Amino acid sequence: MPNNTVTAPKGFLAAGLACGIKKSAGKDLALLGCPTGATAAAVFTTNKIVSPAVTVCRRHLKSRIIRAVVANSGNANTCTGTRGLQNAEQMCAEAAARLDITPQQVLVASTGIIGKQLPMPKVKTGIEKTAHHLASTQSAGLDFARAIMTTDTRPKYAAARIKIDGKVVTIAGAIKGAGMISPRMATTLCFITSDAGIAKPLLARAIKAAIGKSVNKLTVDAHQSTNDTAIILASALAGARISSPGPAFDKFCAALTHLCTDLAGQMARDAEGATRTFTVVVEGAATKADAARCARAVADYVLYKCAVHGKDPNWGRIVAAVGSCGAKLNPEKLACKIGPVTVLRNSAAVKFDRAKAHGVLAQPHHTVTINLAAGRFSDFCLGCDLSKEYVAINADYHT
Amino acid sequence: MPNNTVTAPKGFLAAGLACGIKKSAGKDLALLGCPTGATAAAVFTTNKIVSPAVTVCRRHLKSRIIRAVVANSGNANTCTGTRGLQNAEQMCAEAAARLDITPQQVLVASTGIIGKQLPMPKVKTGIEKTAHHLASTQSAGLDFARAIMTTDTRPKYAAARIKIDGKVVTIAGAIKGAGMISPRMATTLCFITSDAGIAKPLLARAIKAAIGKSVNKLTVDAHQSTNDTAIILASALAGARISSPGPAFDKFCAALTHLCTDLAGQMARDAEGATRTFTVVVEGAATKADAARCARAVADYVLYKCAVHGKDPNWGRIVAAVGSCGAKLNPEKLACKIGPVTVLRNSAAVKFDRAKAHGVLAQPHHTVTINLAAGRFSDFCLGCDLSKEYVAINADYHT
Repeated sequence: MPNNTVTAPKGFLAAGLACGIKKSAGKDLALLGCPTGATAAAVFTTNKIVSPAVTVCRRHLKSRIIRAVVANSGNANTCTGTRGLQNAEQMCAEAAARLDITPQQVLVASTGIIGKQLPMPKVKTGIEKTAHHLASTQSAGLDFARAIMTTDTRPKYAAARIKIDGKVVTIAGAIKGAGMISPRMATTLCFITSDAGIAKPLLARAIKAAIGKSVNKLTVDAHQSTNDTAIILASALAGARISSPGPAFDKFCAALTHLCTDLAGQMARDAEGATRTFTVVVEGAATKADAARCARAVADYVLYKCAVHGKDPNWGRIVAAVGSCGAKLNPEKLACKIGPVTVLRNSAAVKFDRAKAHGVLAQPHHTVTINLAAGRFSDFCLGCDLSKEYVAINADYHT
Repeated sequence: MPNNTVTAPKGFLAAGLACGIKKSAGKDLALLGCPTGATAAAVFTTNKIVSPAVTVCRRHLKSRIIRAVVANSGNANTCTGTRGLQNAEQMCAEAAARLDITPQQVLVASTGIIGKQLPMPKVKTGIEKTAHHLASTQSAGLDFARAIMTTDTRPKYAAARIKIDGKVVTIAGAIKGAGMISPRMATTLCFITSDAGIAKPLLARAIKAAIGKSVNKLTVDAHQSTNDTAIILASALAGARISSPGPAFDKFCAALTHLCTDLAGQMARDAEGATRTFTVVVEGAATKADAARCARAVADYVLYKCAVHGKDPNWGRIVAAVGSCGAKLNPEKLACKIGPVTVLRNSAAVKFDRAKAHGVLAQPHHTVTINLAAGRFSDFCLGCDLSKEYVAINADYHT
């Protein structure tokens, strides 16, 4: 097995361990290092209430190079006032001191419960220990992926390898799920490493586009967290350099999007209580925004999510979602397919093979295709079913 | 017990029976008659896909007087093409023939599964039978309320009595729940009767305002059906006449709003799988629309609905919903209370009595109050918890 964790690209070290934030004694502190320095870019939540970790991250991204990322799970450090901001800064300072770099060269991310102060003595000891454990091994990369998990049942990571200028360039990423996921320019915690050499503005463009086409097209419960952060670090150690738009940049963007799509798929499959996933494709929309809105409305429609859970081709719920989402449509010409099975044509029900449609819904993944007959634009959204387990997880999760 | 059903106001007859649309053999055909003729007004779903019942209703509302309403449950008659439209017209024609009135004097409503043709022979026989059973008794009114039920566990009805010009004026209503309820100018099936004499434009204003302040402030799952209809019929037999805006009209509007609020409360308490309800009050909003949007976002926020089910004062989920709803807010001054318990002040967590907050959430109903600190507008939304039973009902409900 090749190393597909964040330590796969040249120049990266990682570590993850339990410092005592989580009651479960699970791993909760993650550290990523790039001693030679990396170009960095990121996208953040669009929620108006943000964690001080996001605030500090935005500030430190102005540094020319970044040498470390420190992240914790089990506590979001949000709605924590001035002390919360100081604690986010303290996490960067602590990592900087241990790695002999400046605090401005450290990015920070937090995820977990809102409204509680971080247990800073534990966090400081944890940062000290992870700094000692930093390694470029696959198991170190796996520890990192585990330490950012909350209700995830398994670590999520992937890598892609491409050739640029005859050199192998590696891109790798770790991501956490599993609830509060919605495609409003928001993600979850996602950390991507690469040994490509790439100009900062291009890296920013690449990550924004890749997240936009992958993680931002995934919805679990239409929710958007206060901490969502996706960071990419590029070490330039592969020996290949992308300094302007062109075929090499396009190749990098395609590989990054492919990687993020893989990570988004892992999130969907491990979403809280999810037993199967589906893609909603909307065609014939009057605008791209209409297509996106309509696809998202269906993927978020609780009653369709329940129907998918029950493997019931209840397309009436799709129609109700489409009609109320605000997208322009031709009320005489609406069409809908579940997998390859046409269930609606010219806005009227058509006789269809119920056993076949049931079979489509029983699969781990299916596609719903809707034609609004109002134009030539299309878009998609990735969703998952709603199960009793989702409710159990979120009703029994106590603050 | 006074008669609190739709037959309470003078001049109204009702009936409800099983004609065989529902597999369960439950009541599924309802008829309301006003032999002397009633002034009528209605509000409908804003879904772009509507049942032909809505189309026919809109057309017949142009008649000067209405003498009957025919409604069925178990089949929405939606996405049924030309034949569906003919069937909706046929339902009116059939009722008209039995009651010796014109089809244009009959309104029609349907609720249930989308995409199936109505079993017209059964429906016709049903209409004939209900016409024979029309009565002004309380039990006839109860039969009517039962015949419009779908997943409701009990009939929902209420009456209000006011004095206008020294005359007792009665207003009564029956409503159905219990899923697909969202306050986007949409309701469910709701039939209101009154013996007030009131000019048609005033009646239209009164029903729009009352539904806007009650049923449209209730959200169960953010869903909006293709068939939502609220109809009011006024027989003028009480001897009191409201011909212009003024104190008498205001009194009528207040009583109607009170009645609709009662009906909305019954819907919330009987929402699919709901075990408790809550009101979200948003204050300090920059605009009325912001206040309404924010209240609705919290009431619809699946994670808060789960927290309410688990009686957990997880206010972080409220903050996440508020921050992502798009409403203007002061990120330094946000405040939140669960019942009387302040949990957030100046955007920072405050220490609170967890046992007390838990006790608030364990009640059948609680209020969440949010202050956006961005202006002087306020609004509210009524919601309910999300339970495993909701998922079970909607995953196991097969088309």
